[in-house]
Amino acid sequence: MDNENKQPAWPIDSPDDLRKLSPSQLPEVCRRLRETLIRELSSNPGHFASSMGAVDLTVALHYVYNTPYDRIVWDVGHQAYAHKLLTGRRERFATNRTLGGLCGFPTPAESEFDTFAAGHASNSISAAFGMSVASQLKGESPKRHVIAVIGDASISGGLAFEGLNNVAQSRNDVLIILNDNEMSIDHNVGALSRSLSRLNTSRRYNRIRYRAYNFLRKLGLINETIIGPVTRFNNSIKALLSRQQNIFEGLNIRYFGPIDGNDVEKVARVLADIKDMEGPKLLHLRTRKGAGYEPAEQDPANWHAPGKFNPESGERLSSNGGEKWQDVFGNSLLELARRDSRIVGITAAMLSGTSMNILQSAMPERVFDVGISEGHAVTFAGGLAKEGFKPFVAIYSSFLQRAYDHIFHDVALNSLPVTFCIDRAGLVGEDGATHHGALDIAYLRSIAGITIAAPSSAAQMRHLMATAAEFNGPMAIRYPRGAAAGSSADAPLTPCRIGKGRKIADGNRIVFLSVGPIAGNVTRAREILKNKGISAAHYDMVFINPLDTDILREVAEKRLPIITVEDGIRSGGFGSAVSEWFADNGYETPRIERLGLPTDSFVTQGTPDQLYRICGLDPESIASAAEKILS
Amino acid sequence: MDNENKQPAWPIDSPDDLRKLSPSQLPEVCRRLRETLIRELSSNPGHFASSMGAVDLTVALHYVYNTPYDRIVWDVGHQAYAHKLLTGRRERFATNRTLGGLCGFPTPAESEFDTFAAGHASNSISAAFGMSVASQLKGESPKRHVIAVIGDASISGGLAFEGLNNVAQSRNDVLIILNDNEMSIDHNVGALSRSLSRLNTSRRYNRIRYRAYNFLRKLGLINETIIGPVTRFNNSIKALLSRQQNIFEGLNIRYFGPIDGNDVEKVARVLADIKDMEGPKLLHLRTRKGAGYEPAEQDPANWHAPGKFNPESGERLSSNGGEKWQDVFGNSLLELARRDSRIVGITAAMLSGTSMNILQSAMPERVFDVGISEGHAVTFAGGLAKEGFKPFVAIYSSFLQRAYDHIFHDVALNSLPVTFCIDRAGLVGEDGATHHGALDIAYLRSIAGITIAAPSSAAQMRHLMATAAEFNGPMAIRYPRGAAAGSSADAPLTPCRIGKGRKIADGNRIVFLSVGPIAGNVTRAREILKNKGISAAHYDMVFINPLDTDILREVAEKRLPIITVEDGIRSGGFGSAVSEWFADNGYETPRIERLGLPTDSFVTQGTPDQLYRICGLDPESIASAAEKILS
Repeated sequence: MDNENKQPAWPIDSPDDLRKLSPSQLPEVCRRLRETLIRELSSNPGHFASSMGAVDLTVALHYVYNTPYDRIVWDVGHQAYAHKLLTGRRERFATNRTLGGLCGFPTPAESEFDTFAAGHASNSISAAFGMSVASQLKGESPKRHVIAVIGDASISGGLAFEGLNNVAQSRNDVLIILNDNEMSIDHNVGALSRSLSRLNTSRRYNRIRYRAYNFLRKLGLINETIIGPVTRFNNSIKALLSRQQNIFEGLNIRYFGPIDGNDVEKVARVLADIKDMEGPKLLHLRTRKGAGYEPAEQDPANWHAPGKFNPESGERLSSNGGEKWQDVFGNSLLELARRDSRIVGITAAMLSGTSMNILQSAMPERVFDVGISEGHAVTFAGGLAKEGFKPFVAIYSSFLQRAYDHIFHDVALNSLPVTFCIDRAGLVGEDGATHHGALDIAYLRSIAGITIAAPSSAAQMRHLMATAAEFNGPMAIRYPRGAAAGSSADAPLTPCRIGKGRKIADGNRIVFLSVGPIAGNVTRAREILKNKGISAAHYDMVFINPLDTDILREVAEKRLPIITVEDGIRSGGFGSAVSEWFADNGYETPRIERLGLPTDSFVTQGTPDQLYRICGLDPESIASAAEKILS
Repeated sequence: MDNENKQPAWPIDSPDDLRKLSPSQLPEVCRRLRETLIRELSSNPGHFASSMGAVDLTVALHYVYNTPYDRIVWDVGHQAYAHKLLTGRRERFATNRTLGGLCGFPTPAESEFDTFAAGHASNSISAAFGMSVASQLKGESPKRHVIAVIGDASISGGLAFEGLNNVAQSRNDVLIILNDNEMSIDHNVGALSRSLSRLNTSRRYNRIRYRAYNFLRKLGLINETIIGPVTRFNNSIKALLSRQQNIFEGLNIRYFGPIDGNDVEKVARVLADIKDMEGPKLLHLRTRKGAGYEPAEQDPANWHAPGKFNPESGERLSSNGGEKWQDVFGNSLLELARRDSRIVGITAAMLSGTSMNILQSAMPERVFDVGISEGHAVTFAGGLAKEGFKPFVAIYSSFLQRAYDHIFHDVALNSLPVTFCIDRAGLVGEDGATHHGALDIAYLRSIAGITIAAPSSAAQMRHLMATAAEFNGPMAIRYPRGAAAGSSADAPLTPCRIGKGRKIADGNRIVFLSVGPIAGNVTRAREILKNKGISAAHYDMVFINPLDTDILREVAEKRLPIITVEDGIRSGGFGSAVSEWFADNGYETPRIERLGLPTDSFVTQGTPDQLYRICGLDPESIASAAEKILS
């Protein structure tokens, strides 16, 4: 008991407040933080389980290190809510993930405590190493500590390995906190993850290590003059005992742990011990996802981002928004796989997020969740396709960016029949700038020979899935987060013609060309215009590549202004493809207005409706754009 | 001696011929292959040192495995010339890397022995694993063996790690051959590479391992009932002795080696031994780059792709083509770094290829070669930039594709002042489809806030470098392989205005807008047109983003047809940017013809001039395009 300490453990307005406390007060801070998280997130949804599990390590880090002078780099960042609460953003936390409010991920523009962009996995080690090298080059004093906090799922990403491989050959004092809760959103995969779960310092290990050490020294196998032989020896014995070598030590990074990452006093003690130790080091913390809230501890995968809930009962309050796009995908894939034994499913740590788990439940041997390894997912699919299989790779649009080169080199270059099912394409809403699926149309169009489609309805999604199953080349189907338009209930799983769009409505003043479910907003814009006496035609192009040239010729002959509408970036996207077609085919180009996501700024977080309005993609803005052209 | 064998060791027309030989004849095959390589490559240049070093392992693989039924997946593939010679392409080898001839890399379209696209590093393990899983799912009999051959440089790439991490948790019999010649093109970096060089089975190790084993068994630390305890025990003891753990064993992959990879009989023996062993395994071969040709063995980095040479003397015959773009970059960077201590250089195993070694020689502490880790290179640069540095990241265009997401997430999203110096942008010639720098303009344009420029002359390159050094945001400068236009000799290192192009020539019938050194071909096209009485204006836009709107307005007012010319893919590239600008600014768009690389096929290998002609980018084709529009 720290009777002399007069400082209350709560509220904490900044890490300075925290550092005035005695270590024994830290559990109280953690308890208060968890209380706050439960209260806030039950009414304003967010990433719950990860943030709950990381409360203690967050408190310990800010307690021991001199933030913001010392740099904490969060990986992914959805576990950093306690960090936001501790660093002056408690009062604003109710605005988390809302338009104009706090971003759900660390964002340097928001706070000097947020040192680097987070959102995509596995970048923390490389970024932290850059910061550490910068400090060293500047010869800063006092020494600036740099800490990367990375989860056991993110560390399987190739980028994390590249970072480890580079940091390990340096003498920089980067500390890597491995926040090991034994799962990504769903569960973990890969040999590294297995290896982590086996690492343990048993009592038996402690009892015999010195006996064995002395024996081997007598044999002349241990040379005291070598730097750190005891550490290395202990590591090796540990590896022996666990019948498992340690990959970090294989890279010559000092490894500490595993220790209980939900014991804040212990974590703080260990951090203080290793803080001034030189060279790269890794502290392995075992944490419980959802720690401190029993319903979440029991079922952490389901409490990853639970939506609204009753904080007392743990009852989930999320309303059912109807059939999701991802389920239309998942159900179609299972049906197709039943028909065709060549079909397999691949995802990268997004089994339930993409509904690939529907196929997995029925045919586990035909689904491959490769963990956070988007590049591998695509190249692995290329290998399967080369041997006659039909892989469907389901990855969120913004995460598939990691596999751009792999799509080019390992699929498109050999025209292999891999289908990319690009979930979360377009604006995703509350997850914000790092997560919007804005770029896929533009970057896929830069690669020759990829067929690109976007369904505007659940039924069309089923047709496109059936088309892909038959198609003998690379194909991408993009569809957004959330509820699908229409119902898949009576839609047959029959293919459609590649490059064939459809006319939704006739009109004689202006022509809308859209792809994807944004067609719904165009339909409403047409109604607004109709009420003003303006008649607009509307075509749902379905395919971005190849374009439906019959429709384009029909449109060209109308000699009307054209508005293209897409839920993707305007530079190089669907609208550009339409523009390019008119130019390439020698038409005296009509006026073409391209509506889409902005090219000169990044869209932030907000509800999808708010963001569509900001981007000029809501029905009113689309209608206004038409009126403006006609005026 | 195999007196009974009547089969001659040479020529070999297929692996079937090879398999009729006795093991003792294999060295003769290797000798003949090396003779062929020296003779052929001395007159028709290619990747020499790597292919020489890999001769023995190539012969051993085709000897032991039943190719093409068994699959060999080459990583990068520039070491696979002996593979091409052995698999029915000896007669055609003189056409290597020429238009319509053999591709310098394994290419499935060329031969069934080329199982997968090669060219970019680190994809072999993932692709091989896909093939192995395919075979297993099909339940093929006899079992199809799959072998990935990967170099010590490529294995540091994140994709290779993702592949290892996934293959290691499977029970698939993928064999990974680690072809360790202790260097990438220049030399190796990273902790993994260091670790590899330390792995060794010493005699001392062999002497004591059983003594130590027995001792530890008495302590009860070794349990015979566990699968493979002896192997693991030996691995651990080896790790102890080498004071280095083994990362492969950390992932639970059976590790064999290192053995001499230039001893073909030994390699064949070991391959036969481990061929039917179950589960993933790695065979570590030590090879000598350039083995069998003394000048190359002495200086392997310089003999990576030596150009023509005198096979007897080793004298290099490559003509000096004048000042290279990469040297204009390298020299400018050194000058800028002397002025500004915030400037640092980063590359990914392309120190000499990008001429980053110029800065490195003068200021080694300010250059970071991160190995084959393009993603890490970019994210690491982001970390340095966040702390006030000005990183210049020099990576070849086609390899930078690997870092697309990193450019978006770790640089652009926070508007960090990282400059991407994109070497080998545009057609690279003989290296072909995997290496053309076709996509960078298109994919960079999809990311908000990146300034993109392309110099048309050495002097302009210096201005752009100076501009980037001052500019406070992400910027890309793209320039091609080969000799720069003009001279940098008297060009001051002064910045130019962002988004400012220049008029090269006036004209009244048609307007050319170009970016980059393709301006030279446009100049010649103008002369062709002039001789036919057609007057063409020509603007060098310099910047792709932002475009020079003064020029575009001036051009718009001319109401002349426009031809855009770029050494990059037409879909979403510079021409599209020009088109988009006209549409966005409400102009009754003029006729715009975009010349660039094709959007529906991949450009193969050939001389740059041949390829420009094929793509319609040579002076004659450009002039014809203008005539056609005017007719």
